[in-house]
This record gives sequence, C-alpha cells and structure tokens, in this order.
Amino acid sequence: MTDQKTPDLNQRHANRMARKKTIVDAKIEAARIERGLFLVNTGNGKGKSTAAFGLLARALGHGMKAVVVQFVKGRSDTGEEAFFRNQPNVTWHVMGEGFTWETQDRDRDIAAAQQGWQAAQAALKDESVGVVILDELNIVLKYHYLDLQEVLTDIAARPAMQHVVVTGRAAQPELVEQADTVTDMTMVKHAFKNGVQAMSGIEW
Amino acid sequence: MTDQKTPDLNQRHANRMARKKTIVDAKIEAARIERGLFLVNTGNGKGKSTAAFGLLARALGHGMKAVVVQFVKGRSDTGEEAFFRNQPNVTWHVMGEGFTWETQDRDRDIAAAQQGWQAAQAALKDESVGVVILDELNIVLKYHYLDLQEVLTDIAARPAMQHVVVTGRAAQPELVEQADTVTDMTMVKHAFKNGVQAMSGIEW
Repeated sequence: MTDQKTPDLNQRHANRMARKKTIVDAKIEAARIERGLFLVNTGNGKGKSTAAFGLLARALGHGMKAVVVQFVKGRSDTGEEAFFRNQPNVTWHVMGEGFTWETQDRDRDIAAAQQGWQAAQAALKDESVGVVILDELNIVLKYHYLDLQEVLTDIAARPAMQHVVVTGRAAQPELVEQADTVTDMTMVKHAFKNGVQAMSGIEW
Repeated sequence: MTDQKTPDLNQRHANRMARKKTIVDAKIEAARIERGLFLVNTGNGKGKSTAAFGLLARALGHGMKAVVVQFVKGRSDTGEEAFFRNQPNVTWHVMGEGFTWETQDRDRDIAAAQQGWQAAQAALKDESVGVVILDELNIVLKYHYLDLQEVLTDIAARPAMQHVVVTGRAAQPELVEQADTVTDMTMVKHAFKNGVQAMSGIEW
C-alpha cells in the first residue's frame, strides 16, 4: 500500500470494475423472466448431490417447502439425511437398496425406482412444493429402470414456479436438452484416488 | 417384464454387477487413510458454493461444528445465510461489501479480505471445528487481495482431521496442487443466458 504505484493501480482497478459493472448490470436488466427452473448436475466429479442439498438449504432459507427423492441408497447413515429429516418443510424419501452393483437384482431395483417415481410424481403435482430434488435419478434412467419420456413429461407438467433438480452421472441427452441449467461436475482430482477413504461430512 | 428375454437380461445384469462390485470393493479396501480433506470447487458453472453448503449440511448431520467465511457478499438476503444462521454449530461470517465491480474500491476490498482471513485463521487453528468453508476465496486470491503463500500455509497447518472447502472461479494453480479433491463445475447451459432472472432458492 506504500509504493507510489498504488494510487494508479487503484484508479485503473476502479475504471476496469466500472466497465465490468456496466456489462453485468445490462445482463441483469435483460434477464426478466421468472419461473421455476429445471437443473441438472451431472459429470464424474464430486458435488452433484451436495450442490442439490445446498440448494435445498437455500430454498428452506426462503421459506419454501421441499421434497427429496433419493433413487440410490448408498448407506443408511448419511449426514444429509440425518440433518434434513430434522428440518421443518422437508419430506425425504429414500428408494432403492444400495447401488445397483450391491443388490445385483434388476427386478427389485426396477420396482424401487418405480416406487421412487410415484413419490416424485406426487411432489411434481403439488403447488405447495417449491423445490423437488431427484437425487441420482440419472443413474436409474441410465439403466432404463424408468421410462425417460414419462419422466420428462411429468417434469414439464409441474407447477410453473416449482424448481426441480436432477443429479447423477451420465445424464441422458434428452434430459439435458429439456433442462434450463446444466452443470458437468468435472473431476480434476479426488482424494479417494490417493487412498483416502470416504470421510464422514465429506462423502456421506 | 413379460418377454422371454427378461430372465437372460436379469442374469446378465447380475453377472455384470457382480464384476463391478468386485472392482468397487477392492478400491474401497485400498482406501484406508483417514484425515481432514482440502476441497476446491471451481469453474464457470453453477454449484460451487451450493456444493459447499451441501457439505455443510452433511457435516452438521454428523454433529460437526462448522465455520463459514464468505469473502464476497453478493446480497444481504440469501437463503443460505438465513437458513444456516439459525442452525446450532454454525458460525457464519460475511466479509466484503459486494462483488468487486460493485464497490470499485480496491483498498476497501483488500481490507475486507484481510478481515475475512483473520476469521478464517481463527477457525483453521480451532480443533473443535470440523469443517471450514471459505466461500469465494478464489476471487480474492485472483485479485491478489490476500497473500497466496500465507493462505496455503495456514490451510496446511490446520488440525489433522479438519476439512476445508474453498470455492470460486479461477482457482490458483498452487491451490489446486495442494488440494485433495478438486472439481471444475463446467457450465453446459445456464438459465440466465436465456433471460431468466436470478430466482430465489436457486441463485441466492
């Protein structure tokens, strides 16, 4: 802060930021539509489900009601389930009995997925629900345990202001096409690959 | 489920999943290290901060204490702040007075960043804190408002079982190098680009 260049640097910074503010303000002004959004979090990296749970917290902070359907039950003692089941305004459904390579029983997995979709359908018809989170839905669609067209039709027919978040690797192209906001969580590196086990508070 | 091929399909599925289970089980067996992790969520897509807030919920569900330092204050009425400030075991600090193009005052932004880092340092020395979230730290590092080496040293010197999550676009290469798990949230598409304004419960 003491060298002579600081005033110049500060002025140049102010000029650059003023130009940036003009651009950002114009973009915000242009974005006027208000409606419920359809988000997809996919990719091989970490953060697909946790970003959905962060949105859930955000929505609860705005007083919204939320429904979560978990289509793949990794384990029964997750921090997110323990935490959100204690919150008012959250309904939490867990379907499936483990990753599909744990059960190895295709008929049972299909039945669980269909039961999960019934819970999802009820939420997608309920105007009082502000956010519906369909966690790991992409996995059951990848295995064709649900009819993709039925899923897309039910999501499209939801109340106008309701937000939907779908997570899981390998999102189907038709789902990406229909979505408003799609993020590919791209793995740059992962602790698991360096021998670190799934830590509580981080992976579950 | 009624055609003759179903039994074959089910058997092939079971065989494939059994092979997958063997591989997954071996990987889990190999990952034995337990320690606090350093995570970085970067990239231009949606989900960097929300994934950190989802981890926060997950950690709270395991009974951990958490500290959040937000280095860039976008607005004062976010759902995440309203929600988590009401939770026990969370300390929530907001530094900065808007995006840097809003304030256009470099000296003030630097002072705010340094104040934020003092709060971070206190958390990074506190063994009772299980998770420290440094939201948008990448932005203030990009503008050189904090000394990168000091930040990396303080993070490296934290308690052994403490997790740290850093978010924000344009993570510095040295930060990525030191981190355990790094995700690039890659934008596939974003509703804002189609004229949808920042919706409560989704963007704030």
